[in-house]
Amino acid sequence: MSRLDVTEKIIATKVAKGLKWSDVAREVGLSKEWVTAACLGQMTLDAGQAAVIARLFDLSEAEARWLQVVPYKGSLPTSVPTDPLIYRFHELVSVYGTTFKELIHEEFGDGIMSAIDFRMDLQREPDPKGDRVSITMSGKFLPYKTY
Amino acid sequence: MSRLDVTEKIIATKVAKGLKWSDVAREVGLSKEWVTAACLGQMTLDAGQAAVIARLFDLSEAEARWLQVVPYKGSLPTSVPTDPLIYRFHELVSVYGTTFKELIHEEFGDGIMSAIDFRMDLQREPDPKGDRVSITMSGKFLPYKTY
Amino acid sequence: MSRLDVTEKIIATKVAKGLKWSDVAREVGLSKEWVTAACLGQMTLDAGQAAVIARLFDLSEAEARWLQVVPYKGSLPTSVPTDPLIYRFHELVSVYGTTFKELIHEEFGDGIMSAIDFRMDLQREPDPKGDRVSITMSGKFLPYKTY
Amino acid sequence: MSRLDVTEKIIATKVAKGLKWSDVAREVGLSKEWVTAACLGQMTLDAGQAAVIARLFDLSEAEARWLQVVPYKGSLPTSVPTDPLIYRFHELVSVYGTTFKELIHEEFGDGIMSAIDFRMDLQREPDPKGDRVSITMSGKFLPYKTY
Amino acid sequence: MSRLDVTEKIIATKVAKGLKWSDVAREVGLSKEWVTAACLGQMTLDAGQAAVIARLFDLSEAEARWLQVVPYKGSLPTSVPTDPLIYRFHELVSVYGTTFKELIHEEFGDGIMSAIDFRMDLQREPDPKGDRVSITMSGKFLPYKTY
Amino acid sequence: MSRLDVTEKIIATKVAKGLKWSDVAREVGLSKEWVTAACLGQMTLDAGQAAVIARLFDLSEAEARWLQVVPYKGSLPTSVPTDPLIYRFHELVSVYGTTFKELIHEEFGDGIMSAIDFRMDLQREPDPKGDRVSITMSGKFLPYKTY
Amino acid sequence: MSRLDVTEKIIATKVAKGLKWSDVAREVGLSKEWVTAACLGQMTLDAGQAAVIARLFDLSEAEARWLQVVPYKGSLPTSVPTDPLIYRFHELVSVYGTTFKELIHEEFGDGIMSAIDFRMDLQREPDPKGDRVSITMSGKFLPYKTY
Amino acid sequence: MSRLDVTEKIIATKVAKGLKWSDVAREVGLSKEWVTAACLGQMTLDAGQAAVIARLFDLSEAEARWLQVVPYKGSLPTSVPTDPLIYRFHELVSVYGTTFKELIHEEFGDGIMSAIDFRMDLQREPDPKGDRVSITMSGKFLPYKTY
Amino acid sequence: MSRLDVTEKIIATKVAKGLKWSDVAREVGLSKEWVTAACLGQMTLDAGQAAVIARLFDLSEAEARWLQVVPYKGSLPTSVPTDPLIYRFHELVSVYGTTFKELIHEEFGDGIMSAIDFRMDLQREPDPKGDRVSITMSGKFLPYKTY
Amino acid sequence: MSRLDVTEKIIATKVAKGLKWSDVAREVGLSKEWVTAACLGQMTLDAGQAAVIARLFDLSEAEARWLQVVPYKGSLPTSVPTDPLIYRFHELVSVYGTTFKELIHEEFGDGIMSAIDFRMDLQREPDPKGDRVSITMSGKFLPYKTY
Repeated sequence: MSRLDVTEKIIATKVAKGLKWSDVAREVGLSKEWVTAACLGQMTLDAGQAAVIARLFDLSEAEARWLQVVPYKGSLPTSVPTDPLIYRFHELVSVYGTTFKELIHEEFGDGIMSAIDFRMDLQREPDPKGDRVSITMSGKFLPYKTY
Repeated sequence: MSRLDVTEKIIATKVAKGLKWSDVAREVGLSKEWVTAACLGQMTLDAGQAAVIARLFDLSEAEARWLQVVPYKGSLPTSVPTDPLIYRFHELVSVYGTTFKELIHEEFGDGIMSAIDFRMDLQREPDPKGDRVSITMSGKFLPYKTY
Repeated sequence: MSRLDVTEKIIATKVAKGLKWSDVAREVGLSKEWVTAACLGQMTLDAGQAAVIARLFDLSEAEARWLQVVPYKGSLPTSVPTDPLIYRFHELVSVYGTTFKELIHEEFGDGIMSAIDFRMDLQREPDPKGDRVSITMSGKFLPYKTY
Repeated sequence: MSRLDVTEKIIATKVAKGLKWSDVAREVGLSKEWVTAACLGQMTLDAGQAAVIARLFDLSEAEARWLQVVPYKGSLPTSVPTDPLIYRFHELVSVYGTTFKELIHEEFGDGIMSAIDFRMDLQREPDPKGDRVSITMSGKFLPYKTY
Repeated sequence: MSRLDVTEKIIATKVAKGLKWSDVAREVGLSKEWVTAACLGQMTLDAGQAAVIARLFDLSEAEARWLQVVPYKGSLPTSVPTDPLIYRFHELVSVYGTTFKELIHEEFGDGIMSAIDFRMDLQREPDPKGDRVSITMSGKFLPYKTY
Repeated sequence: MSRLDVTEKIIATKVAKGLKWSDVAREVGLSKEWVTAACLGQMTLDAGQAAVIARLFDLSEAEARWLQVVPYKGSLPTSVPTDPLIYRFHELVSVYGTTFKELIHEEFGDGIMSAIDFRMDLQREPDPKGDRVSITMSGKFLPYKTY
Repeated sequence: MSRLDVTEKIIATKVAKGLKWSDVAREVGLSKEWVTAACLGQMTLDAGQAAVIARLFDLSEAEARWLQVVPYKGSLPTSVPTDPLIYRFHELVSVYGTTFKELIHEEFGDGIMSAIDFRMDLQREPDPKGDRVSITMSGKFLPYKTY
Repeated sequence: MSRLDVTEKIIATKVAKGLKWSDVAREVGLSKEWVTAACLGQMTLDAGQAAVIARLFDLSEAEARWLQVVPYKGSLPTSVPTDPLIYRFHELVSVYGTTFKELIHEEFGDGIMSAIDFRMDLQREPDPKGDRVSITMSGKFLPYKTY
Repeated sequence: MSRLDVTEKIIATKVAKGLKWSDVAREVGLSKEWVTAACLGQMTLDAGQAAVIARLFDLSEAEARWLQVVPYKGSLPTSVPTDPLIYRFHELVSVYGTTFKELIHEEFGDGIMSAIDFRMDLQREPDPKGDRVSITMSGKFLPYKTY
Repeated sequence: MSRLDVTEKIIATKVAKGLKWSDVAREVGLSKEWVTAACLGQMTLDAGQAAVIARLFDLSEAEARWLQVVPYKGSLPTSVPTDPLIYRFHELVSVYGTTFKELIHEEFGDGIMSAIDFRMDLQREPDPKGDRVSITMSGKFLPYKTY
């Protein structure tokens, strides 16, 4: 058994029971973004969170234990994703990559936006011309320092 | 001469004259995100916008004309970027890729967030534990349809 | 169980029962292009469509449910396809890629042809020198906008 | 001097003189699709066609001679294109690749759609919900034969 | 079950029964080159040919049916083959690729040698200094046409 | 100066003077296949051959000397060629690779067809249904030996 | 002019003048590790540091200005380095990668060792069996957090 | 059975029994760095070490024997790792690779730091601004020699 | 069953029974280099050799038959090997590749060292400063010829 | 100026003056293998050696200085070499890679053959069936140690 097996069981159970990530997140008491990432094998749960997930997805005790182990992260099978929805994000990095770099450096100096001390929020943004996906990302700025 | 030559001249002139992207954007009258991307060779300017850029960056008439030609997009030299700041965005797509996919489909059904009918806003988010980079993205949801 | 398992079962059942995609499409009441793509794991079916496919391909209820889940798209094992028929399409993109770009921009300005709000039709085109494959693609033009 | 140099000169001259591909094609007396591909270094011109292109783009006699040499084809810098417009075509091959294969084989048996004995036509398709790009491709079916 | 399973069974049965491809080809009544390629999962058999193969390799009816389905072609696990015998052919394309191109264009103009309307013959060529492998390939020339 | 510079000069001179490879080969007194490969930077000429090439292509003495240096071989910019004519040969290796292997081993045992002790001949094969490209390859069989 | 040009000039000047990185670092007043990385185009200097480097390496004012611009980082031409000294570090990541992961998670929980809030020190470690390279790295632990 | 199977069993048993690498190392009587690497399939154990590991992880005699076989090393699924913690080490090699090279050559001349005659030590470094990961590496310097 | 299965069984049996390659080679009556390569799936055995291997490694008759089939060669999972011992050979080709080329051409003219008509011998070379690995390779020189 | 420029000048001068590596080595007083590798940009020369090379190849003082700088090693443009002579060595690593590993470990235990403390000798081996290339490699065995 491995974390991947547990992830696949969670996904299959979700399909079989018709669960929704937002409901799962409410049960866990955290954001739907973090909880979904955790269920998809990208985050580490504590014992209490794992117990909720185990209950919702009919996991065994051994499977619940795997949820508390730090996973090998990376959710995609290829470095350039083939799935159109995910590719659009890859494209944004490709097209706007140097723009992100210039504007963050202009505002903060040399450093990065942390992808660890990071949170995000994904919402529907109603729009008469067609609703929009709105994503707000917040990552701590980490400066390079001299030494 | 090519668009790439014009981009390189813009970058070199920015360094030489000490310009700031936010000031350039103000002159153009558009967001700093779009204007920076355009100056970096990713967007197409109209005649008026090109004239402003030409004035600020000492471009010739021929160079200004290239700004109005649709560029071959993609700002990065490798598909997995080596620059740490840009890599963190690549990592977010890698770690959260399937999460984006699950949550957008849960909310909207099958389709994508457009990377074309798209806008974004990058701000400093003051925080006592260290200021944060805040990025808000908004892309139209485009549904797959049966036919 | 995963969507891939269901796709493989559909393909194996098609071989075993000698079904034709055009007949399957007629039963579903949609184009053969969309229905084939859906059966091959690239599109999402609604409950009614899934029920038809389940009947034709002897799928279980659990398998039918997977047809209604948005799949991870991309039907090819390598980014440059080895199969000669599919490679010819890759070659068309390679040889005519910049031509598509120039002509669409000349007609519409900066933007793309949507691969989401998209439909296509594939027909036999009789020809005394040898019949031809005729493919008509129609995708909504999506303009880049300033912001 | 090489064909690539001539292609780059044609593109630069087009920007400088503000030419349109459809006008160039009319002068040559062939479709805009073939003429654009030829100007972009993908097709071989005969002496008469080369003379027209040379006149329109101010090419020297030596440059015009290169237009009559069969080029090394392939117009893209990477096998997975980064440009969003061209990527959408790559995505169509990725998502619909197996669908093309199934439907062509179902209609014609084993073989391919020729990418050589091939023509295409790209048009604006007016639509109240937003105009569309319409592309019609026609390629001779070439059957595999036993021997 | 898939075509790959059938190919693997054919190979294993060949080893177990000590069959020779030239004998198999004689039974089918076609060249050893085509028949071997077909048995290795690269060509499509008709019902009669499949029946012969099924008899020789102890295939079930279901397996024989797979032989009549057009396979996803490409027989090698990597694009640059590691096997020394097959690599030598890759090397010939690498070293002589531009020579093939120059000489075919010099003789025929712009176009290709078809890999579909194609046949080949592989023979032992006795030679006092060591016998040689002789391969004769014949492919229809397909010209690019203007349109 | 390098061999590549000499190759490029030969190609440019060929275009400028309208030379034909078959005429060049006749002057050298060897096959058009070997002479073309040599001119394209893949073979090593002796002093006499280099003198002929130098005369025909207006090479300097220094350039002629480079023709007598063993070149770094490999004529293609990418391991999977984008040019359609050359790709067809890559495809033949991909589709028929395992067939070559099986038939050569069946006839000769374990070993390879040499790509060094090798010659080939490319001819037009008249055919009422369309002329064909005929290529005959002959390579010495080299057996693996035990030791 | 670009940062890469300045880096190349620094390297060439170092060879020409026979400078040592440790002496350069002493002049700047920072560690040899940070100063070398900065001179090699990986870090951003402030005005005072740039002035010292400009003096030592005979840089123009324009070149010194480039040292104060945040560079596009990544110092290697390929993702798997060919240079034996640098490859050994790549090998350590390959062999010990999962060990780093297990031990850091065991000590700290889920998170990473920062490569930004990072410093290192490289020293000669005398040893009778042959002196050793000793490298001490210190990076802030950054924990993943729930949200 | 293979070494990989044994590694996977060790990892699964560690999760099931809640073992800690530092405790395992204490039992073996060696550093936690070496013992963890060995358990993860990167080092070779002697009979006594294997017996300890077998006892702690409930391995069979056959499994213990595999621990004494030299493994095929390399612990990562891709050459550029997707896991954020491991990627940071890849990034350090990318950003500091040429710096390592310059400083080691400046101190020792041409040669490498051995990755074989190598040891390392990973510790928590308490820090009021947030604890740090401290890694000390020591590798024998191996000089290139003339011959 | 495939040759790979037989190779894996041989390796597992070697671990289980504690066999040594040099002893196996003595039983076969050939060099340890050839016999090891054959057992690892890279060479073809005759009936007598296969019988010896079958006896030593407890192979079935069917498995022994696979040893007499020419295998698909190439023993490594990636083209750049991750294993440190094997990587050092890759590095020698990378660092000394052009040196091999220059010196062999200087001595023999244009051609190659055969990797087929090839033998090698690996020995321990005692040395007071630490024993050395000594490898002697001998391959027939094969000259390119004109035609 | 860079080391690469000096290497290219050495190669061009060798062609122009018709020098031989073995004569160059005799002048330097070291083996032809080491001297050739050094001239091709893979090894570091001391002042005396550089002076000899500078005299033979008409290098300037600045160029001679570059010969004394440790180069970024790796002599091949691609990780899988296209040149047939060099590829044969790549093939030997691919086919015999696991054999090298097994036999060295059987003789020495876990560790590697050093590619740094390494020397080699390349000789013509006369043979009535065709002369052979004989290469003797000697590298110190470096054992992995526990810690």
